[in-house]
Amino acid sequence: MPLVRIDITGAKPEAYKRALLAGARLAVTSALGVPDSRVNIRVFEASPACVDVPACRTDRFTAVEVLLYEGRTPALKSAFISTLRDIYAENPGIEPSEVTIFFHDASVTDLSVLPGEAETH
Amino acid sequence: MPLVRIDITGAKPEAYKRALLAGARLAVTSALGVPDSRVNIRVFEASPACVDVPACRTDRFTAVEVLLYEGRTPALKSAFISTLRDIYAENPGIEPSEVTIFFHDASVTDLSVLPGEAETH
Amino acid sequence: MPLVRIDITGAKPEAYKRALLAGARLAVTSALGVPDSRVNIRVFEASPACVDVPACRTDRFTAVEVLLYEGRTPALKSAFISTLRDIYAENPGIEPSEVTIFFHDASVTDLSVLPGEAETH
Repeated sequence: MPLVRIDITGAKPEAYKRALLAGARLAVTSALGVPDSRVNIRVFEASPACVDVPACRTDRFTAVEVLLYEGRTPALKSAFISTLRDIYAENPGIEPSEVTIFFHDASVTDLSVLPGEAETH
Repeated sequence: MPLVRIDITGAKPEAYKRALLAGARLAVTSALGVPDSRVNIRVFEASPACVDVPACRTDRFTAVEVLLYEGRTPALKSAFISTLRDIYAENPGIEPSEVTIFFHDASVTDLSVLPGEAETH
Repeated sequence: MPLVRIDITGAKPEAYKRALLAGARLAVTSALGVPDSRVNIRVFEASPACVDVPACRTDRFTAVEVLLYEGRTPALKSAFISTLRDIYAENPGIEPSEVTIFFHDASVTDLSVLPGEAETH
């Protein structure tokens, strides 16, 4: 059920975006223990004219937002953060310092997800 | 004052997007009792290369985020969720299971909206 | 560390977007006291077909989301809101009523930022 949103400065090659998507999926499933069938991820590629980051940032600066049900411990979140930075350092090759991550916890009242049915059609 | 953000996988026809916008407006005004003049909605159409959803999802998977002032009861939010899924099932024709909805409550400190003045110009 | 996201209805000229980015940077650094090197801002330009705002809004309606570490007082947030509306009224010339602003506070558990290293390379 986590919804992951990844903001980057584009344009980037398809392989770069695929690595961002696959890496976020791997981090969510491995570090947070979420089943593969519940992970939804999007990359938003803003044009450089629409981005203003400080001089200490590169065009690989990546902001990752994870919306998920509340209840994960700080230790679990911290493990996710380390895992994702490690994965992105390897592929597509982003300095850990260039990866900013934030969580939005949602109560069951505030996040409504139904199981996907496409497989049963 | 609610700000509604709808994330979809594109490209979709104009009529499809118009149905998403109109349906969200109808759900907010009817189920949450918000005046028409206070509802702002945006659709964000990501290219398929920027989206990673599990196999149980279709290309109609729709994530709807509603930012609004805190204070709505769980029952009201639940009514909104049902209403929006019903509306989208009819038009543009999205399986209820493909509609994920989440609320962000904001305090009056954290959300600042002024009445629109364009009509008085 | 604040991440600022600005949603507008496009297309707008480059100068307009530059004014939005620079104005948000100035408001964050001056009103919230955040160092320049920690401010990241993005403009998201939606096509008119993807936006549904009420008749009292213009095509300059601007929604600004500020994600930052928790702890700012209501007075500080209020000062930021006034400052940003003043700046945008001057350049690019947006009616204060057309600027909606919201804050998302994050705990240190939920927002992980590392210092940028690009300058040291």
